[in-house]
Amino acid sequence: MSVLIVGTTALDSIKTPTRENPRLLGGSASHAAVAASFFSRVKLVGGVGEDFPKKYLALYRKHGIDLAGLQILPGKTFHWSGEYEVNMNHRRTLLTELGVIETFQPKLPAAYRDEPFVLLGNLAPALQNAVLDQMHKPRFVVADSMDLWINIALPELLRLLKRVDGFVLNDSEAELLTRENNVQVALRKLHRLGPKYVIIKQGSHGSILSGPRGIFLCPAFPLRTVEDPTGAGDSFVGGLMGYLAGARGSIEANLRRAMVYGSVTASFCCEGFGLNATTKTKRADIQQRVKQLEKMTVF
Amino acid sequence: MSVLIVGTTALDSIKTPTRENPRLLGGSASHAAVAASFFSRVKLVGGVGEDFPKKYLALYRKHGIDLAGLQILPGKTFHWSGEYEVNMNHRRTLLTELGVIETFQPKLPAAYRDEPFVLLGNLAPALQNAVLDQMHKPRFVVADSMDLWINIALPELLRLLKRVDGFVLNDSEAELLTRENNVQVALRKLHRLGPKYVIIKQGSHGSILSGPRGIFLCPAFPLRTVEDPTGAGDSFVGGLMGYLAGARGSIEANLRRAMVYGSVTASFCCEGFGLNATTKTKRADIQQRVKQLEKMTVF
Repeated sequence: MSVLIVGTTALDSIKTPTRENPRLLGGSASHAAVAASFFSRVKLVGGVGEDFPKKYLALYRKHGIDLAGLQILPGKTFHWSGEYEVNMNHRRTLLTELGVIETFQPKLPAAYRDEPFVLLGNLAPALQNAVLDQMHKPRFVVADSMDLWINIALPELLRLLKRVDGFVLNDSEAELLTRENNVQVALRKLHRLGPKYVIIKQGSHGSILSGPRGIFLCPAFPLRTVEDPTGAGDSFVGGLMGYLAGARGSIEANLRRAMVYGSVTASFCCEGFGLNATTKTKRADIQQRVKQLEKMTVF
Repeated sequence: MSVLIVGTTALDSIKTPTRENPRLLGGSASHAAVAASFFSRVKLVGGVGEDFPKKYLALYRKHGIDLAGLQILPGKTFHWSGEYEVNMNHRRTLLTELGVIETFQPKLPAAYRDEPFVLLGNLAPALQNAVLDQMHKPRFVVADSMDLWINIALPELLRLLKRVDGFVLNDSEAELLTRENNVQVALRKLHRLGPKYVIIKQGSHGSILSGPRGIFLCPAFPLRTVEDPTGAGDSFVGGLMGYLAGARGSIEANLRRAMVYGSVTASFCCEGFGLNATTKTKRADIQQRVKQLEKMTVF
């Protein structure tokens, strides 16, 4: 099976304490789509400007990503620029040029509307809702979000949460949304907003799933080098949804392993700027790290 | 078998955003000894003043802790007072009255010197070294420490690290000691200082063991309520050493489970002020949480 992924398709200019890389392929949909492509076919929904480099279209295609849902619009591609501090845990935005993303309206090709797996990557909740409006009965819908939307588009986000099966956010966003710093209590409050499954990401500390089978503590693969964590969260949820779409059996039975595969895919993302390391990764590399992670967690 | 535990024996006055509790039984040795007592017999080494409440001696005895090594010295018991912020992750010291701890010199009863398992709980490294000087060939020695000793007694601490099998510290202390914020790189640097086993504690995110069998990612038990985290790190390493001392088989084979038992014992510590929750815990309660934690981590 395949997975439909919507989100931002952007150019990222990223500064870290040691390096600077301008206009890399970035955005939530790009990271999620490449991560998902290791496990299943991917149908991308997004919008780029006329300046979008052809080499990035080639990169999507190299990963077998279906681009029928990628609109090339008059204007400039969304451009984000950010800078990381020494410990890579804090970043600040230097520049946000919305470009075509400002007026982008997702429009799904007919062939996309029956997809069973839908990842609503980080994007304005109104657009995430607009994608869902166009879908026929999807089997499993997961939404990602960010602090920005909690701050400026809360009603739309809350409307979305009533329509999705799973919601993914990081720990500081969970605290912002629930006003609760205890993760277990926050999880309970998040379920009350609608989603059956809630996943709270904790960066290098892994992530926590809460669902009908209880809590799953998903480890992060320990890395010696973190070159650039941009897109790690998108890679995580992309890998997760790709794994689910590619696996046989019930969602419930596959979800924990899907998180581990997502987590490992995200670990590769952190080892290079933008998508540089992810695109060099092979399915066998992911497999190997999953096995290593199993050995590191058994007791 | 039993475990010898040295460290501070103190009175803790603890403020949290919601409560205040004066002169609770505290100190690294108290927390570690009670935690270890669930799994093995404990021989305590420490020093208290003449003001030390009799009820706390009774509490030690209730846990079967051998007090032949506890000196009652002229003067006042070490008194520490601290205050936690809302999220319980940051605390500040309000008051430190060293009392008898200022001149305390550990003196081991003859019956203590052949103990196979030795926990050098958080204490001045010179005193930790003085305890080791009095031991005949112990089988397994683990030292804990804190930022204070890294800052003011580094040469003594480095001398100690060459003499121990295991070293336990938290992530910020690891960064302070190694000047390295990547945990994996910090672990490598810490091994070079001597210890075969290094454990980095990460609070509610669990802990990481590095040793000959590689990395073990030890989970923390997810709690809904954290009343007072004081002593959680001491409970962790106390439970760990108690479990090792009480278990059959090789250290290597038991160490991962020992960490999980330590982690769970520490989770109970956090649920009450001082030792209030720990002392109410039964071995069966610990067993049950270990099983729950197994279910939360399997994939």
